[in-house]
Amino acid sequence: MSLNSPLGAETVNGDGFGFGWYAEDAAAGAAPFVFRSTEPAWNDVNLREISRSLRSPLFFAHIRAAAAPPIQQTNCHPFRHDNWLFMHNGAIAGFSRIKRDLVLDVDPELYPTIQGTTDSEVLFHLALTMGLTDDPVRAMGDAIRRVEAAGQAVDIPFPMQGTIAVSDGHTLWAFRYSTQGRTRTLFHSTDIPTLRHMYPDAERLSAFGDHAQVVVSEPLNDLPGAFVEVGESTVVILDGTGYRHQPFLAA
Amino acid sequence: MSLNSPLGAETVNGDGFGFGWYAEDAAAGAAPFVFRSTEPAWNDVNLREISRSLRSPLFFAHIRAAAAPPIQQTNCHPFRHDNWLFMHNGAIAGFSRIKRDLVLDVDPELYPTIQGTTDSEVLFHLALTMGLTDDPVRAMGDAIRRVEAAGQAVDIPFPMQGTIAVSDGHTLWAFRYSTQGRTRTLFHSTDIPTLRHMYPDAERLSAFGDHAQVVVSEPLNDLPGAFVEVGESTVVILDGTGYRHQPFLAA
Amino acid sequence: MSLNSPLGAETVNGDGFGFGWYAEDAAAGAAPFVFRSTEPAWNDVNLREISRSLRSPLFFAHIRAAAAPPIQQTNCHPFRHDNWLFMHNGAIAGFSRIKRDLVLDVDPELYPTIQGTTDSEVLFHLALTMGLTDDPVRAMGDAIRRVEAAGQAVDIPFPMQGTIAVSDGHTLWAFRYSTQGRTRTLFHSTDIPTLRHMYPDAERLSAFGDHAQVVVSEPLNDLPGAFVEVGESTVVILDGTGYRHQPFLAA
Amino acid sequence: MSLNSPLGAETVNGDGFGFGWYAEDAAAGAAPFVFRSTEPAWNDVNLREISRSLRSPLFFAHIRAAAAPPIQQTNCHPFRHDNWLFMHNGAIAGFSRIKRDLVLDVDPELYPTIQGTTDSEVLFHLALTMGLTDDPVRAMGDAIRRVEAAGQAVDIPFPMQGTIAVSDGHTLWAFRYSTQGRTRTLFHSTDIPTLRHMYPDAERLSAFGDHAQVVVSEPLNDLPGAFVEVGESTVVILDGTGYRHQPFLAA
Repeated sequence: MSLNSPLGAETVNGDGFGFGWYAEDAAAGAAPFVFRSTEPAWNDVNLREISRSLRSPLFFAHIRAAAAPPIQQTNCHPFRHDNWLFMHNGAIAGFSRIKRDLVLDVDPELYPTIQGTTDSEVLFHLALTMGLTDDPVRAMGDAIRRVEAAGQAVDIPFPMQGTIAVSDGHTLWAFRYSTQGRTRTLFHSTDIPTLRHMYPDAERLSAFGDHAQVVVSEPLNDLPGAFVEVGESTVVILDGTGYRHQPFLAA
Repeated sequence: MSLNSPLGAETVNGDGFGFGWYAEDAAAGAAPFVFRSTEPAWNDVNLREISRSLRSPLFFAHIRAAAAPPIQQTNCHPFRHDNWLFMHNGAIAGFSRIKRDLVLDVDPELYPTIQGTTDSEVLFHLALTMGLTDDPVRAMGDAIRRVEAAGQAVDIPFPMQGTIAVSDGHTLWAFRYSTQGRTRTLFHSTDIPTLRHMYPDAERLSAFGDHAQVVVSEPLNDLPGAFVEVGESTVVILDGTGYRHQPFLAA
Repeated sequence: MSLNSPLGAETVNGDGFGFGWYAEDAAAGAAPFVFRSTEPAWNDVNLREISRSLRSPLFFAHIRAAAAPPIQQTNCHPFRHDNWLFMHNGAIAGFSRIKRDLVLDVDPELYPTIQGTTDSEVLFHLALTMGLTDDPVRAMGDAIRRVEAAGQAVDIPFPMQGTIAVSDGHTLWAFRYSTQGRTRTLFHSTDIPTLRHMYPDAERLSAFGDHAQVVVSEPLNDLPGAFVEVGESTVVILDGTGYRHQPFLAA
Repeated sequence: MSLNSPLGAETVNGDGFGFGWYAEDAAAGAAPFVFRSTEPAWNDVNLREISRSLRSPLFFAHIRAAAAPPIQQTNCHPFRHDNWLFMHNGAIAGFSRIKRDLVLDVDPELYPTIQGTTDSEVLFHLALTMGLTDDPVRAMGDAIRRVEAAGQAVDIPFPMQGTIAVSDGHTLWAFRYSTQGRTRTLFHSTDIPTLRHMYPDAERLSAFGDHAQVVVSEPLNDLPGAFVEVGESTVVILDGTGYRHQPFLAA
C-alpha cells in the first residue's frame, strides 16, 4: 500500500501545514515522523526539499486554514500518538463553549500531551481515551458522539463537521461525517494501472506509482473514473487488500 | 497632511507585509520606523497590536505577493534610507537577467545597504544614486529609464511595471508608470468632510479622520466620488497644500 | 510613575520574548498592547524598531528561556487579561503532573482564554479566578497556595518558584516567592535624581528619565545604591507614591 | 565513506542553522538536499524529526552565529550549487567595504544565484567562478587570494578567516586557513573500530557507525586519539581511501 499525497496541490490555505510519514523500513509499531510549520506552504523552500527527498510507504499531508489565531506549530496537523497519526479537515462548531467539558473527558494520563488549542487535537485525544488504538472505528464514533452530546447540551445544533484520517502505519481509516449530514467531500483514487490503460495519454497519471493509493478531500484530476467519492456517514478502510467502505454513525 | 493606510484591507497576498511610519512629533529629517514580517498579514496578532497602538501622521503599508522565494524580511516593503521610505507595487520584467547590470550602476557607497534580493530594492537604490533625495520626480524617472535601457538591451519588451510611493516624511510622491502603458491602478481619496456631507449615512467613512488622505492601489469603498484614479504616466504629489497631478515619463 | 525596562539587556535567553505596554494617554481601564515573538531577541530587527518608537508610562518586557518546546507566541510573556498584564520568571515544578488539576480550578468562563501550554499562564488564570483584579496580593497568594497544595499532593517538594509582575496600568505588584525559600532575585531602582547627584559622571544613568522606576531580575548596573533587592517572600508595590515592601506568604 | 555530523552538539549559537545531505542511493552528480532555518536549533522540533528520519552517506550541518542581522534562510549554510555543497565557519574581515569589488568578479552567469547577504556565499560564488567544480583546491585557493587582494587594497590587514567544507557528494574537502595564520580549529575523527578497541567501555562511541568519519570544528569527545587536529594552512581530503592532508596556501 502506498499513499501519495499531493503536497502543494491545495495551496489556497495559508495558515500552516504539516505532514507525517512512516519510514520505509519501519518496524511494526514504529512511530512516524512529523513536520509542521506555520509558514504558508506555497513558497516554503524547506517543504520542497523535504518532500523531494522523502520516501515513505504511507504519509499524511495537511494544509491549514485557521478560523482564527493562534497560528502555531502545535495547531498544525497531523497529530501523533505513538505510532498513530490523525488529521481532521473540518471543525467542531462552538468549540470554545464545550472545550472544557470535552477536555475533562480526556484520560488524565493523556491530558499533558495536548499541546495546542485546536478542536481537532482534543477530538484526537477523546478518541484515544475511548480506545482508538484498539478499535478505531468504534472509538472514533464514540468520540464524535461525545462531541455531539456536549454541543447539544449547550444548544449547538450541528457540532461535528469534517473528514478525518487516522493510521497506525499499516491501515488507514478515513471518515466522512457531520451532524448535519452535509460533510466536506472525501475521495480516494482507483487502480492506477487500470487508469493508465483507460487514459494512455494522460500525463497527469505519470506522477503516480502503480501501487499509489490516494485519499483526498478533492479529486486531483478530472479524469472520469479516477477518483471515487466516499459517501456521507462512511468510513473507508485501506489496507493491503484495498479499499473497503463501511457505514459510520449512519442514522 | 495625514495618510491612513488600511492595514489589513488587502489581505489576499500572503508572502509577508511591512509598514513604515513617521513619529507624531518627529523632527524634520528624522528617520521613520519600519516593521516587516514574512508572516501572512491576515492572522498576525502582533500586526493587530501594533497597528492599533501606533499613531503617525504619515505611514506606508504593503502586502507582498512574491513571484517566488525567498520569502524574507529583507524583501518586504517599505524600504528605508535615512528619512526616506519607498515601496513598489509591481515588477521589473526579466529582472534576473539585468540585475547585475543595474546593481553596477548603484553608487558604491550605497551598494552595501542592499539587503534583499528584490527588483524593488535595486530600483530604490538606483533612484537614490540618481538623486532621489534632491529631486524625487527627476531621479525616479532617470532610474526607470535606466531599467528600461537595461531591459531593452536584452530584448525585454516591457521592463517596468508598477506604482511606487516615496516620502521624506513631509511630502508623498506616488508614481504610476509602466513601459507598456498598462499600469496597475492607483487611487487617492478626496476631501473627507466633503464626502461626509455627500454621504451623511456612510458608515465606511467613520474610520477616517477629517484630514485623512489615502493613496491606495484600489479604492477602499465604492462611494462615487470618494476616490480619484491617478492616470497612466502620472505622479501625484501630496503635501500640506493637497494633491497635485503631474505628467511622469509621458510619451 | 514610569517603568523603563531594559529591552535587550537580558539577551542570554533565546526562546522568544515579549513586551506589553500601556498607551501614554490611555483611559483608566484601557487594555495594554502586547507584542510577543518566538525569535531570539538579540537580532530581531522589528524589536529594535518598535522599542525605539514606543512611548509608554508603564511597560513589561520578558525574555524567555524555555525548559522545552513548544516555542510559540502563546507561550511568551506577558499575558494579558482586560487591562491587566502578568509575567513570571520561574517555574512550577512537576507542572505536567498537576496541570490538569490546576486547570480544573480555573473559572470555566476564563478557561477558553488559555491559549498556550505554560505553567505561568495557568498560574495567571488561577489568580484571575481567585480575584486578582479585586485584590492582587491576596489572590496571587491564594493561587500560589493552590499550586503548592496540588504539588504536595503528588509529592513535589517545592512546587513554586519565581518572581511575578502584575499590573492594572496604574499600580505594579512584583512578587518574590518560592516554596523552598530560595527564589530568583528581584530588584528595583532607587530615585534617579538622587543617583545622578551621587554619581554625576555615571553615563549609565543617562538612559533613564528622572522619574524612571525599574523593576528587574538583575541590577542593570553596579553602582552601589542604585538598585534595592526585594527580599524573599515579599511583594513590592509601586504606584504614584513610590515603592512599598510587604511580606508575602511569609512563614 | 560516511560523515555523521553531530546535529545539536554545537547549540551555543542561535542565529539559524542548516544542513545538507546527499541521498543514500543518489546517482553520481545528483544534487543534495538542503534544509535551512532561522530558528535556534536547540528547541526546533522539526529539526529533531528530520535528523532522526534522514539517512545519508554524506551530510553537512552548520549552526550560525551571525555578527548582525539579517537573520534569514538565505544566509544560512550550507550553500548549494548543482551537486556541490559549501559551508564556512569564519568571516571575511571588513566585508561590507569589499563586497561590491568581490561580487563584480563573480561570473555574471552565476551572479543571479546569490540569494543572501553573507560573505560566505560570495566566497562560494568566487570559488565557483574560479573553477571549484574542476579543481576544488586550486579554485578555493584562488578565491581566497582574491579576497585577500581586495581586502589589502583597502588596508584590511587580515581579510580571510575560517574553515571551509566543500563536497561534490563523493569527496569532501575541508580547508583551514586564515590570512593571519590563526585559524579556528578543525578536527577529524580517526578509525572508529580502532577507537572501540582502545576504549571498549566508552559509551560515547556507540553513537557512531563503524565507518563513520566526522570532520568538525571541535572534538566531539575528549578521548585521547579520537580526533586529529588539522593544521594551519592545510586542506584535508576525505574519500573512499581515507583522509589525506595537504598544504593549502602555505607561506
